Amino acid sequence: METARLETFADGVFAIAATLLIIDVSADAKGGALGAALEHHWPQYAAYAVSFVTIGIMWVNHHACLQLIDRADRTFLFINIALLACIAFVPFPTMLIAEHLHDGGVRAAAITYGLTMTATAICFALFWFYAATGRRLIAQSADQRVISGISRSYLPGTFIYGGSTLVALWSPHTAIALFAAIAGFYVLESSLFGRE
Amino acid sequence: METARLETFADGVFAIAATLLIIDVSADAKGGALGAALEHHWPQYAAYAVSFVTIGIMWVNHHACLQLIDRADRTFLFINIALLACIAFVPFPTMLIAEHLHDGGVRAAAITYGLTMTATAICFALFWFYAATGRRLIAQSADQRVISGISRSYLPGTFIYGGSTLVALWSPHTAIALFAAIAGFYVLESSLFGRE
Amino acid sequence: METARLETFADGVFAIAATLLIIDVSADAKGGALGAALEHHWPQYAAYAVSFVTIGIMWVNHHACLQLIDRADRTFLFINIALLACIAFVPFPTMLIAEHLHDGGVRAAAITYGLTMTATAICFALFWFYAATGRRLIAQSADQRVISGISRSYLPGTFIYGGSTLVALWSPHTAIALFAAIAGFYVLESSLFGRE
Amino acid sequence: METARLETFADGVFAIAATLLIIDVSADAKGGALGAALEHHWPQYAAYAVSFVTIGIMWVNHHACLQLIDRADRTFLFINIALLACIAFVPFPTMLIAEHLHDGGVRAAAITYGLTMTATAICFALFWFYAATGRRLIAQSADQRVISGISRSYLPGTFIYGGSTLVALWSPHTAIALFAAIAGFYVLESSLFGRE
Repeated sequence: METARLETFADGVFAIAATLLIIDVSADAKGGALGAALEHHWPQYAAYAVSFVTIGIMWVNHHACLQLIDRADRTFLFINIALLACIAFVPFPTMLIAEHLHDGGVRAAAITYGLTMTATAICFALFWFYAATGRRLIAQSADQRVISGISRSYLPGTFIYGGSTLVALWSPHTAIALFAAIAGFYVLESSLFGRE
Repeated sequence: METARLETFADGVFAIAATLLIIDVSADAKGGALGAALEHHWPQYAAYAVSFVTIGIMWVNHHACLQLIDRADRTFLFINIALLACIAFVPFPTMLIAEHLHDGGVRAAAITYGLTMTATAICFALFWFYAATGRRLIAQSADQRVISGISRSYLPGTFIYGGSTLVALWSPHTAIALFAAIAGFYVLESSLFGRE
Repeated sequence: METARLETFADGVFAIAATLLIIDVSADAKGGALGAALEHHWPQYAAYAVSFVTIGIMWVNHHACLQLIDRADRTFLFINIALLACIAFVPFPTMLIAEHLHDGGVRAAAITYGLTMTATAICFALFWFYAATGRRLIAQSADQRVISGISRSYLPGTFIYGGSTLVALWSPHTAIALFAAIAGFYVLESSLFGRE
Repeated sequence: METARLETFADGVFAIAATLLIIDVSADAKGGALGAALEHHWPQYAAYAVSFVTIGIMWVNHHACLQLIDRADRTFLFINIALLACIAFVPFPTMLIAEHLHDGGVRAAAITYGLTMTATAICFALFWFYAATGRRLIAQSADQRVISGISRSYLPGTFIYGGSTLVALWSPHTAIALFAAIAGFYVLESSLFGRE
């Protein structure tokens, strides 16, 4: 089974999950109060930006993996579906954080976001290691050093998001800052060092 | 007429139907009550997961069929549209089950879910048997044993979902457990035996 | 400019417009009242089915046109965007009809649906005749008899939907039945005579 | 890295952002009041049309750029993600303008729309100049005069939208008319002079 249609389906889910984030951005205000309401809702825009970029990063990574993979079996398709189910779930905890950043629900919101990201990181690791172990689904032309490099870079992801989720138990605002920082760090690091 | 654009359109509907499931996941709670509300709403997450995986399975099957089909006529396009209309309908009964699992609406919700799945299974059978009968739309290179194998595996689908829907009349919770079990069984069976 | 990316974008809009129809299907009911509410809301399901099939027919036609067209200019891209804007608008009047079939808003709803469909038919005619006149964007290999056949079949569309909209002024329910009949007729006619 | 999958993802976001605009078109009215409500809500339809066409123009431009670009690096992918995040944001300020055109919130709505468009124009300029400077990502076959022509045409965009946003501080209705005029001008100009 080739990977072309898997990519079409995955690209669709990535694009929709990212674009649906806007549905949770809202501003219910009457007339002249709109300006103040828009300023008050700044966490919505920040959450939108962080989640859009995070989904974008996952899309870039998914893309990079599939450039090295040239076939798929049923197990791989189902791992991919589980991964996409996690990614399509991201708009929900994003909205929770945006709505509860300033109230007592922030801990539950940050934990939900963290658990979603941790589950996503676990599925991403399964996705990659299922394909890469023994070069099960890897294209013959792919350089083993590139494969090993990706494998090394995927190990910490689960721990970073899992750790940030534990931080949320103690200080949800710190955890939320970490989630934003992880996305920012990745963009910077990739842009500076990842030029291909 | 070739099947390439049919696949693009179908992949779009599959991806959107799956991703739209998140819209019905919600948690309206003030401040500190959010944690309890998120726990109380566990049927939403379970329903999201079951429906996402079910749509994912349908996508895998659709994919597998179209690998053997290399042309389409108008009738086939309309059967495909009817099939996609059923699949795009799935988020609605999913939301009904998630919202009514704990109240008196659970029977109506389970029946609606079951009828949707039965209609989907009927359309899927039409989709396949229209293409496969007399190899009407099948690629010359496709192995007849593979065609016959798929034909055999598609016959029970309608009866399994139809039967589960009848069960819902008597015990909606049993039927809902069956819907989840069908998805789980299929994933396991495919992963263990379906390695291509 | 080639038409490949135009098709990707168009397929996306068709798929999303069709799938978004489900968002307007709802059933707000407490517990045991759900069954009755679901029966009461049958116009929603009928409207969903008719609009999904109507959008599906438009997709099939768009597909059939683009098989004969092998290049695009800027004007053609903008006509295509106007056409897609009409198609993406369909979920709105669909929802109006579903909600107002049994109350005094049915006339306004049917007129809105009819105007949307008439505008869509006009854009579709512009789309085709811009490309076909003098074979401006038609592939060299395309048979002129096929081109002329499509041109003849596109002329009545605007008048059929325009006429049905006028009927809505006098009897909205008759007009709504006509909208459903147009979709049903087209599917039957294509399936019986359109086998390619 | 090739640009094919970047286009699939981008086309998905463009198509979804445009199609989601319909979600914010609504008409809550009981029975016979529907007709008047639909007329009263004309700003919704105008806003829908302007934003759909504006997103369509951006898609045409994105398309035109990527025809000249034949490879991507990580930085370019992230610029593209930032651009898509701006475009996917458009439904939000569109809805604000549609809802507040006749009340005291119109200034805040117009400024939000203008800032979104200015940010989009800045991202679009970054997108193009990152690729075009020193022909970093430009295909060898691309004519330098075409590249320079696009570069010249992209410089004013940021200033036009930035200026219109400043106008909104003084007269929001003038700014809104400017936003519609910019879209209309572009369509006309492209159709008259841009025939390729």
